[in-house]
Amino acid sequence: MSAWTTSWRSVLPHLTVPLPEDRSPETSGGHGIGVNLPMELVRQSVQPREYWQIPEEVLDAYRKFRPTPLWRATGFEEAVGARVPVYVKYEGGNISGSHKLNTALAQAYYYKRAGVRELVTGTGAGQWGTALAAACALFGLRCTVFMVGSSLERKPYRGVLMRMLGAEVLASPTGTTRVSRETRGQGNSLSLAIGEAVEYAAGREGAAFCIGSGETYSILHQSVIGIESIAQLAELDAEVDAVVGCVGAGSNFGGIALPFHAEAAAGGTRPPRLVAAESSSTPKLTRGVYAYDQTDATGTGPLEAMYTIGSSYPIPDSHSAGLRYHGAAKLVSAMRHAGQVDAVAVDQVEALEAGRRFTVREAVLPAPESGHALAAAARLATGGAERGVLVCVSGHGYLDLGAYRQLLDGELSDQAPAPEALLAAVAGLPRVEGART
Amino acid sequence: MSAWTTSWRSVLPHLTVPLPEDRSPETSGGHGIGVNLPMELVRQSVQPREYWQIPEEVLDAYRKFRPTPLWRATGFEEAVGARVPVYVKYEGGNISGSHKLNTALAQAYYYKRAGVRELVTGTGAGQWGTALAAACALFGLRCTVFMVGSSLERKPYRGVLMRMLGAEVLASPTGTTRVSRETRGQGNSLSLAIGEAVEYAAGREGAAFCIGSGETYSILHQSVIGIESIAQLAELDAEVDAVVGCVGAGSNFGGIALPFHAEAAAGGTRPPRLVAAESSSTPKLTRGVYAYDQTDATGTGPLEAMYTIGSSYPIPDSHSAGLRYHGAAKLVSAMRHAGQVDAVAVDQVEALEAGRRFTVREAVLPAPESGHALAAAARLATGGAERGVLVCVSGHGYLDLGAYRQLLDGELSDQAPAPEALLAAVAGLPRVEGART
Repeated sequence: MSAWTTSWRSVLPHLTVPLPEDRSPETSGGHGIGVNLPMELVRQSVQPREYWQIPEEVLDAYRKFRPTPLWRATGFEEAVGARVPVYVKYEGGNISGSHKLNTALAQAYYYKRAGVRELVTGTGAGQWGTALAAACALFGLRCTVFMVGSSLERKPYRGVLMRMLGAEVLASPTGTTRVSRETRGQGNSLSLAIGEAVEYAAGREGAAFCIGSGETYSILHQSVIGIESIAQLAELDAEVDAVVGCVGAGSNFGGIALPFHAEAAAGGTRPPRLVAAESSSTPKLTRGVYAYDQTDATGTGPLEAMYTIGSSYPIPDSHSAGLRYHGAAKLVSAMRHAGQVDAVAVDQVEALEAGRRFTVREAVLPAPESGHALAAAARLATGGAERGVLVCVSGHGYLDLGAYRQLLDGELSDQAPAPEALLAAVAGLPRVEGART
Repeated sequence: MSAWTTSWRSVLPHLTVPLPEDRSPETSGGHGIGVNLPMELVRQSVQPREYWQIPEEVLDAYRKFRPTPLWRATGFEEAVGARVPVYVKYEGGNISGSHKLNTALAQAYYYKRAGVRELVTGTGAGQWGTALAAACALFGLRCTVFMVGSSLERKPYRGVLMRMLGAEVLASPTGTTRVSRETRGQGNSLSLAIGEAVEYAAGREGAAFCIGSGETYSILHQSVIGIESIAQLAELDAEVDAVVGCVGAGSNFGGIALPFHAEAAAGGTRPPRLVAAESSSTPKLTRGVYAYDQTDATGTGPLEAMYTIGSSYPIPDSHSAGLRYHGAAKLVSAMRHAGQVDAVAVDQVEALEAGRRFTVREAVLPAPESGHALAAAARLATGGAERGVLVCVSGHGYLDLGAYRQLLDGELSDQAPAPEALLAAVAGLPRVEGART
């Protein structure tokens, strides 16, 4: 149990430049919708304090599934021809099936303490919605989830699981919110679901909108993954020079990777290479621009500095629904811009094949999202890394077996954005100062 | 790690009467199909030795997921109004999603050592097939699974998972085996799938049929569950006077419960009440007869002494497919006959509702089969048990969310056998000496 931690660890004290401030939207049209964050979450987003005490109630919940396992994946190494050891940190063992529960529990706790009685959110693949439903069940809060309709249709059982946990699940676009009527369901499906949740929460007494990924505080809560990993690698007397996580907005990657940056910065040593594995169908970190963009489709939230392919870019369907987000977290984006974070894009065929090999040899079934990280880890372990690779398997794939069936039956293909479509989607976005255009 | 064990523990030294010997079938019709068991499995089935060393290769595999967690389920206690503590032992955390992997690994190891290159089996819900596929992948054996077709249709993802693990999956009845043609797919679907597997294996060089549950050696391999539980309860300074497991053939129940019998017998103390929770649609232990019956539909295997509702009884479809077996293991049956084992029947609505409450309050999603055990545990904890209840959650329910959806939408019902149908199915079976008729 030496990997057990009672603190989260922030990377904010170790940034070389401060995070760019958010901008007000120019297009709010007068019906601005505010999101009231509990003060502690605000503080966690801005204060450059290294350690944050995890509240006792959250620790009690963490004890049900943390520390999570870390092991050397010798079978996977053999399957991919690795030349250095590959270590795996597995976050899929809890009820929500992914790392998202780490921040859902923290957020439910802080919102409840702030007097909120209902949490409302948008979800793509459903991992975040499931995590929030589980956290709300534990803390006695109501929960309403707007889930991307195409994703809910493809993975109906995610919806069932959320309902079992007591949440109300709505297929987005619902047609009942202003934002869903105005966009007529066109455009970016996840940012629309989030937009619907924001609008819905604003109209309900005692309700608050909350979000699973991308926020600086949610990345802080995920730091338990990296903190535990550092201790577990030390126990194994193992050393890695590359740390890999998959990136939707960035909380899984941030969770496993950024504590390594903080640890190295605090100790004056060289950090391992921190590699964000994104989907080639949403290549914000490898093909996007560093600009101010919206986080959702309401057009009313603040504009954040992020690597983005444009919040209006119509992302194609994909099995790695958890990666179908147009932008990277502002913290991850800033560190990418400062050269502290690396990125690679992986397509879903390579990702699912890596997931299949991992399943056969490691007896753990990864989510398609995690397959992206595994594929990136395999690339590094066969060339690039010199001492070892740590990779986070962010979730399990028991609700994604339809994707693996398509892989087995040769029915999978990929849809990377055409260059002109990307250019069009980011054309009007104000670039962050110092960014290449 | 003090719950870690390197031995299995057998209850055979502590039976009050020896197990009735198997009988030759009278209806084999000359095309008898033999099943060649590795010698060690034969020995484990008959020798009254208390401890059996677990082979090092099997221990290596166990280390990936054992010891499994045991905790006090205070949330579930509250939800059901328990008057005594309820402790849960959870076996769903491995790739196969159930306890079946404990014996699949052992069997794959022994068959491989005996020179077998392919294992063939029949599976109902698919948990056993998945476990065997995982074990074969690990030990480098081919794997062929005959899965009950209606179950495969209802749970296609079980089939996908087996295929991912490298197994060939065939929907039974296939129409390509003699037994499936002769029965024209009528009758007991699981014993037909097993019969197809037996016949198929007999016709292939280097192949062997193997079975997941009910055999005395498979119950021995499952004893890791109970052995760990005894140590974990001691660590918690907890005492229980009832131990509950669900019963298909009996390996999960036997695994958690029988080590408590052995421990008490060896120490000269009074064992806790050992309660087998069966499905009310296959009520062999509560409404069956103690008789010699077939274990599969080939009509060529030995007749075993078991509590049975008749191998010819047409079991209705149910979500708890893992409990859809006509008989109880001969070891469990003998102990039931001797009054060492207790039994209750639970219908699927009560079982799934117990599973739902458990999910909400304990943040673990149980398989419907395990829901039967949880419902029985809830009954005991609200009346009957005086110090505490231990219950095994045999598997996870991520591939059974269709069943929970029916529960949430009020579409579930039950089909207990009509008394006259039961009487007809067991009419011709030779009763075990001393059994009530």
